[in-house]
Amino acid sequence: MDLHQNTNYTMLCDFYEITMGGGYFSAGLKDRIAYFDAFFRSVPDDGGFAILAGLQQIIDYINDLSFSEEDIAYLESRGLFRQEFLDYLRTFRFTGDIWAVPEGTPIFPGEPILTVRAPAIEAQFIETFLLLTLNHQSLIATKSNRIVRAARGRPVMEFGSRRAQGPSAAILGARASYIAGCVGTACTQSDRDYGVPALGTMAHSWIQMFPDEYTAFETYCRLYPRNATLLVDTYNVLKSGIPNAIRAFKEVLWPMGIRQCGIRLDSGDLTYLSNHARQMLDEAGLEECKIVVSNSLDEYIIQDLIQQGAKIDSFGVGERLITARSEPVFGGVYKLVAIEDDSGAVIPKIKVSENASKITTPHFKKVYRIFEKDSGKAIADYICIHDEVPDWDQPLELFDPVNTWKRKTITDYTARELLVPVFKDGKQVYDSPSIEEIRDYCARQVDLLWEEVRRFDNPHPYIVDLSLKLWTIKNDLVDQYSSKKTI
Amino acid sequence: MDLHQNTNYTMLCDFYEITMGGGYFSAGLKDRIAYFDAFFRSVPDDGGFAILAGLQQIIDYINDLSFSEEDIAYLESRGLFRQEFLDYLRTFRFTGDIWAVPEGTPIFPGEPILTVRAPAIEAQFIETFLLLTLNHQSLIATKSNRIVRAARGRPVMEFGSRRAQGPSAAILGARASYIAGCVGTACTQSDRDYGVPALGTMAHSWIQMFPDEYTAFETYCRLYPRNATLLVDTYNVLKSGIPNAIRAFKEVLWPMGIRQCGIRLDSGDLTYLSNHARQMLDEAGLEECKIVVSNSLDEYIIQDLIQQGAKIDSFGVGERLITARSEPVFGGVYKLVAIEDDSGAVIPKIKVSENASKITTPHFKKVYRIFEKDSGKAIADYICIHDEVPDWDQPLELFDPVNTWKRKTITDYTARELLVPVFKDGKQVYDSPSIEEIRDYCARQVDLLWEEVRRFDNPHPYIVDLSLKLWTIKNDLVDQYSSKKTI
Repeated sequence: MDLHQNTNYTMLCDFYEITMGGGYFSAGLKDRIAYFDAFFRSVPDDGGFAILAGLQQIIDYINDLSFSEEDIAYLESRGLFRQEFLDYLRTFRFTGDIWAVPEGTPIFPGEPILTVRAPAIEAQFIETFLLLTLNHQSLIATKSNRIVRAARGRPVMEFGSRRAQGPSAAILGARASYIAGCVGTACTQSDRDYGVPALGTMAHSWIQMFPDEYTAFETYCRLYPRNATLLVDTYNVLKSGIPNAIRAFKEVLWPMGIRQCGIRLDSGDLTYLSNHARQMLDEAGLEECKIVVSNSLDEYIIQDLIQQGAKIDSFGVGERLITARSEPVFGGVYKLVAIEDDSGAVIPKIKVSENASKITTPHFKKVYRIFEKDSGKAIADYICIHDEVPDWDQPLELFDPVNTWKRKTITDYTARELLVPVFKDGKQVYDSPSIEEIRDYCARQVDLLWEEVRRFDNPHPYIVDLSLKLWTIKNDLVDQYSSKKTI
Repeated sequence: MDLHQNTNYTMLCDFYEITMGGGYFSAGLKDRIAYFDAFFRSVPDDGGFAILAGLQQIIDYINDLSFSEEDIAYLESRGLFRQEFLDYLRTFRFTGDIWAVPEGTPIFPGEPILTVRAPAIEAQFIETFLLLTLNHQSLIATKSNRIVRAARGRPVMEFGSRRAQGPSAAILGARASYIAGCVGTACTQSDRDYGVPALGTMAHSWIQMFPDEYTAFETYCRLYPRNATLLVDTYNVLKSGIPNAIRAFKEVLWPMGIRQCGIRLDSGDLTYLSNHARQMLDEAGLEECKIVVSNSLDEYIIQDLIQQGAKIDSFGVGERLITARSEPVFGGVYKLVAIEDDSGAVIPKIKVSENASKITTPHFKKVYRIFEKDSGKAIADYICIHDEVPDWDQPLELFDPVNTWKRKTITDYTARELLVPVFKDGKQVYDSPSIEEIRDYCARQVDLLWEEVRRFDNPHPYIVDLSLKLWTIKNDLVDQYSSKKTI
């Protein structure tokens, strides 16, 4: 299934993961059990939620993790590492545990979306690949879902390969966009490797290659009668493109009994042109002809076009989706939150910072999503310590971790744990869903959010709260570090 | 050398390249010789120039181009293509010619940066990979060069892997940033595969893993005495981080006779903290200790820090470089500009558009860069038809292609052709330079631009003009298409 992933990405790590690894090795810390959380601090585009994607590529990476002799030779050539450490790397594998939020789940700032429990050297080493994969695919899934929602049921196709930031941004970006609701991609490799339906018909060069536009259209309709979406803006949409398309549909497709067809507009004013095109097509008896548009679209332009009554049936979205142009960075981080002492007790760890927003929430944690019983809608996420056993039959008091006077007590709710086991002792224990299952799950989970949380601008903040026990531990640790003179 | 490129990217193409390919095949057009130009329309960040990068990956792609049986099986499963076409794809190779601007060259909007002459089906097919590679790496090279110039000689390191848009954005982005002047990267794989020096020491987790900050620093200095850049903001920079670092340097490094060391600041006000850190280090006799800073830097923040007199020796730049966050799209396009008729004559082709800026410059062309003899500085690029033979001993009249009254005649100049042969009849005829050669060449070429063109904001527009003959052909073709009712 995964033909693309024939590349071993073990060396795709920040160099400091290896210097630290060598350090843990030499300092006798390599087997100290450490807990790391991946989480993010803000939703791109000031949105109300993000969508997690990329877990499958992390699973593949962990399963493939190992150093080749070439890798070892390269590291040796750097002259920094001891021979025992390099020998150790020859048999290096991941032997720890990973819990993660399933792909397609709406996620919120500040909550763990992936937790690793492993010997320090292993947990540290996988940081870079984990982050880049979660950050990239969650970024594109989050942006794509906004665009798909803007289209209000009209199909959105991902067309951005040529503007993607490198090969894997094209291939995996198409995967993430499909998870988040796009109906297909232009990228052929994403179809072959991941089952994302690849779509496409012609570029302007097809039309230019023929002596005239009609011959180009007529030839295409003859060759691909069941995939005939004609690009009509090479010369002049209303004077030339549409009349030639109408003629080709009637002269080639109608005699075959085919009524299904389409045109694509890739420039000009899409409201004006689509409305005139619709009228010309309808007058010609081509009511079934679909109008596809492309050209630097995003969620705001699509919203405007629909609101203006543009007669558009589907959207092809390129660079603004595949690079998440309006905010191309998803700021996921990976932080040490606990270690185990020699007795196996979990000791919470914190990183204080000059920037208050960079203070981490310590400890090995669980996350629950709380749903209102009546409506089934998600109302809050609740983070507690791994061994807390909340009594979900009791009313639950939620309070804001910063403005603690903001409280509410909820009843008639259900709770679902968000993080599921993915690896146990280095073995995959998670049955990877198919991409269609992930896509369906994503649509259903987004539907469980209130409309107010899904708003593009100024969404209602979704509640992500800590249990009283966790909140107390965090605040005690902050106090402890800020009161010391030197650590 | 190129261990990363073990992936065959033949299927990394827009699906329409294949539907068009099948169409050319069936319509008897597959061997029609076509000319395509790659060019771009505007410089990201409103800069005065861009830097071309990615040519080596295009060369690798062309050399590897071929369909596997799995690819053919996938295409067959789509039920769209004729058996003869699928059989033809089994032996599909690139057999044409490619000219390109060498990597590291400053490039300007509207000029060909890569030209393909090949049978239509081949020239069309390679579009997607060519564009995505040129667009991605030129984007990152252009952004990196701005950041490097802002640092005014202080080293800039690329630290962005974890925020890159997928694996190849990290690996190849580091390559592009090195070409454009960064001194190294955090990405280990870019070092192993492309010879971009990988650098790094420790994350906050290293410090947190030890009972206290001093023990973490002391251990690191013992293990890596010649690579000791200590991260000092885990708890409190001035109260804890710097004092502990000073103690570790003095107690561990000094007895070894090592004076070279560094600290890194990753949060807080970098001007305030670096100035205080500098003072504390100097007072402790650590004048040779370097101060490295990171945390959401870009060219503007670096410029401000330097202008404020921050005592910073080098910069680590992450997400804003590796995603080109301020403008993450490089809008390179690939357009048919000519075909050959049966006699081998070159027939120019144009694409008119409702958007004036999307009208292409037709024909098989050459590009010359014109240098002032005295200063050696580049003063204009001059585009003419492939068989024009300008007499460079005569004065050259340049005129603006839109505002044709803007003219000037230059004398005392030299001219250099920009596009060099890369493939001839499908064979590579270009000796790929090493990455160090590309990097040196880039620095020298950027130096040949006037300071006014290099300004970040409102740069002086560099002249890119057409020969009178080319200008006339373009305008005649535009008139011809816009005067027709239907094409």
